[in-house]
Amino acid sequence: MHDFLSIHPEVAAALKAGRPVVALESTLISHGLPAPASLETAREIEAAVRANGAVPATIAVLDGRIRIGLDDEDMQRLTVPGTAKVSRRDLPLVLAKGADGATTVAATMIAADLAGIAVFATGGIGGVHRGAETTGDISADLEELATTPVAVVCAGAKAILDLPRTLEYLETRGVPVVGFGTDAFPAFYHRDSGLPVDGRCDTPEDAARVLNAKWRLGLEGGIVVAVPIPDAAALDAATAEAAVQQAVAEAAAGGVRGKALTPFLLHRLETLTGGASLTANRALLLNNAAVGARIAVAYARLKQ
Amino acid sequence: MHDFLSIHPEVAAALKAGRPVVALESTLISHGLPAPASLETAREIEAAVRANGAVPATIAVLDGRIRIGLDDEDMQRLTVPGTAKVSRRDLPLVLAKGADGATTVAATMIAADLAGIAVFATGGIGGVHRGAETTGDISADLEELATTPVAVVCAGAKAILDLPRTLEYLETRGVPVVGFGTDAFPAFYHRDSGLPVDGRCDTPEDAARVLNAKWRLGLEGGIVVAVPIPDAAALDAATAEAAVQQAVAEAAAGGVRGKALTPFLLHRLETLTGGASLTANRALLLNNAAVGARIAVAYARLKQ
Amino acid sequence: MHDFLSIHPEVAAALKAGRPVVALESTLISHGLPAPASLETAREIEAAVRANGAVPATIAVLDGRIRIGLDDEDMQRLTVPGTAKVSRRDLPLVLAKGADGATTVAATMIAADLAGIAVFATGGIGGVHRGAETTGDISADLEELATTPVAVVCAGAKAILDLPRTLEYLETRGVPVVGFGTDAFPAFYHRDSGLPVDGRCDTPEDAARVLNAKWRLGLEGGIVVAVPIPDAAALDAATAEAAVQQAVAEAAAGGVRGKALTPFLLHRLETLTGGASLTANRALLLNNAAVGARIAVAYARLKQ
Ligand SMILES: [Mn+2]
Ligand SMILES: [Mn+2]
Ligand SMILES: [Mn+2]
Repeated sequence: MHDFLSIHPEVAAALKAGRPVVALESTLISHGLPAPASLETAREIEAAVRANGAVPATIAVLDGRIRIGLDDEDMQRLTVPGTAKVSRRDLPLVLAKGADGATTVAATMIAADLAGIAVFATGGIGGVHRGAETTGDISADLEELATTPVAVVCAGAKAILDLPRTLEYLETRGVPVVGFGTDAFPAFYHRDSGLPVDGRCDTPEDAARVLNAKWRLGLEGGIVVAVPIPDAAALDAATAEAAVQQAVAEAAAGGVRGKALTPFLLHRLETLTGGASLTANRALLLNNAAVGARIAVAYARLKQ
Repeated sequence: MHDFLSIHPEVAAALKAGRPVVALESTLISHGLPAPASLETAREIEAAVRANGAVPATIAVLDGRIRIGLDDEDMQRLTVPGTAKVSRRDLPLVLAKGADGATTVAATMIAADLAGIAVFATGGIGGVHRGAETTGDISADLEELATTPVAVVCAGAKAILDLPRTLEYLETRGVPVVGFGTDAFPAFYHRDSGLPVDGRCDTPEDAARVLNAKWRLGLEGGIVVAVPIPDAAALDAATAEAAVQQAVAEAAAGGVRGKALTPFLLHRLETLTGGASLTANRALLLNNAAVGARIAVAYARLKQ
Repeated sequence: MHDFLSIHPEVAAALKAGRPVVALESTLISHGLPAPASLETAREIEAAVRANGAVPATIAVLDGRIRIGLDDEDMQRLTVPGTAKVSRRDLPLVLAKGADGATTVAATMIAADLAGIAVFATGGIGGVHRGAETTGDISADLEELATTPVAVVCAGAKAILDLPRTLEYLETRGVPVVGFGTDAFPAFYHRDSGLPVDGRCDTPEDAARVLNAKWRLGLEGGIVVAVPIPDAAALDAATAEAAVQQAVAEAAAGGVRGKALTPFLLHRLETLTGGASLTANRALLLNNAAVGARIAVAYARLKQ
């Protein structure tokens, strides 16, 4: 395995000493946010993890190796247009070719687990797409959550998804969805989807106890820790939903599918909201990084 | 793990000696049957297991520990209104909070497997809900059957479900559905859904050989042993189906969903059938407990 | 396990020495092709594997044992009408009864993995059936690909399936779909479904590197290596699709479902295409066997 995996010395030292580490994904650098905001945000996210007491480990594939912890130069490489978007199915292909790739939630979970990192902060997980009853388009992130033991700290699922069906899927696959300071599943750009979570945690220590109970019992799979977007950055619910519906309709009309779908929708949302969706996205990413770090700190303490 | 799991001394002794044990769920006590019938039935089920040569192990979560084997006092606690219904996703939350909860088929399978119990008797498994093509509402029991090595002795799936799709799901996930003394998948309140099983066993020894073949081969997951309701207690098929359809329509009209759905439907069925559905439910529970015990006896003999 | 598994001496010797072996399924003998073409084709497939440097291991269940590598006499037994078609769910039942059975893609993968065979050549995998949004009819082959570490060399999925949804399902479950010498997912009877693969390999060595990367990383599950039918044998795309649609419509009208569906459709296609579908099927089976053998050779070399 080691020829395909390389852990940054700072991250390796923290893991060896049982100190808190937070995994971070790289799709946001390559595809989730427009340059140069993407690189700035990635750096700010790492800083937010450090400010809250944990070591950041941004994850990507470079030269056919999974890299756990990136230098600034590595991050810059990921902004090269055309960088592959790597989910579970793509990992073997990118590794075999010796290529570069930005890791999705699913692939980042795999890599975090290989390295022994229990907490991962991101914007939003993938899920069941609107219209999945006929297309079958369901993100591999959900299956990864069902099998790989990593807690994913997020603002819920991406707003472009079918949230009720995403929660049903997670229920079927036995994935706990924990509300952090909320009884409602957040809706990414706004704080309340109107759907309930499975349980509520009000402190990082509460959340750490859920992680501990799940994995001490030997239950496979991950945990969704859903954190509402900070109030000041939240979009109005009706505005956000109208923009999402228009973007989804445009994608359907234009036949946009597969890997191109999510980047297309995010880009359209930014335009339709006059840039507000991008501001909101950055705010929730930083908030999730901070909460993730605090949970990683609490979990590391609990494990000692 | 041990701080989250506690096995009753009688059950532990039986397991250690390789004597037959039958796992039993507790959702029927808290949510499946109305009080006081629920507690009486739970006691009768345990007696039926003993009368057929095995040790009963009713499973629940009490004070944040999974308990394998309950005393009468424990069972009474589970009748407290508002007791949580605990499936796979809920287990970490209930354990972390130190709370009580009644275990579904999925959570009971997990607990039985942790304790080393191979046979579990219940009323009916969860499955694919009617209308799942748009809601995505599919019970976690089906995924549990796909992954956890426990044989579930039941009268088929709950009558409120979409039986053809439930069987398709089990086929996709590779779960054997064995008819006990029948070639037809039972329909809970009546004996024949009109759908075929994958194979037929006419004796406990036949069934034990299927369990042995599956797990000796190292195939992950469970087995459905489907036992038709005793003839004398069966409802008329048309009556049962009409009542189910009315109850399902009422739930849809009233917006009843999620965890509230199954209890709502069972309660409406009882009223719509003038109590006959409750009588049938108790009869099939006792019958499944007896058959489960006989299979556990045969399987214990085979393993020696 | 050994009482349920028996490996042919030639195959066992090859596996022990790290020499290339290709697993082959037996459903094509019992159900996929009409006699006597079925037996002839099975022999020709084995010869194609040998001609390309690997040892063939046709897999079936005989007398309640999984047999890895068959003699000619064993193959003849599988042509007996009424031989069971054995998928994952059926294995425990057939083994417990001591019966015979022809193994599907899913069951052949299980058996190959038990024996330690990494490459398996077949015609086409199962997948999501047309109309699955209401029937839920999805082949167990897809779940097997998600969990069992075997590379399946095929001409794509069976033509009677919903190809876009089959690819979505494989994506959700994280299964790499590799095009062998093509960027397009093949459509069984013709070379291009119009849908993309996840990546392309142009040589057996390329493909072997993907296998190696996936399993060295510890990723569970298999890989689809999709090989287009040889040009000379391909059907015209429009002709093939028209025949498939007619056969599917006839099956729906006649209420043909479950295990009977695939044999019915294949038989109807043969008639509707004036035998051309059978000729095409044989050609792609031989081609896949040859490619599978060359990949097995490359993979064995890589592992040394
Ligand atoms: Mn997708
Ligand atoms: Mn449900
Ligand atoms: Mn099917």
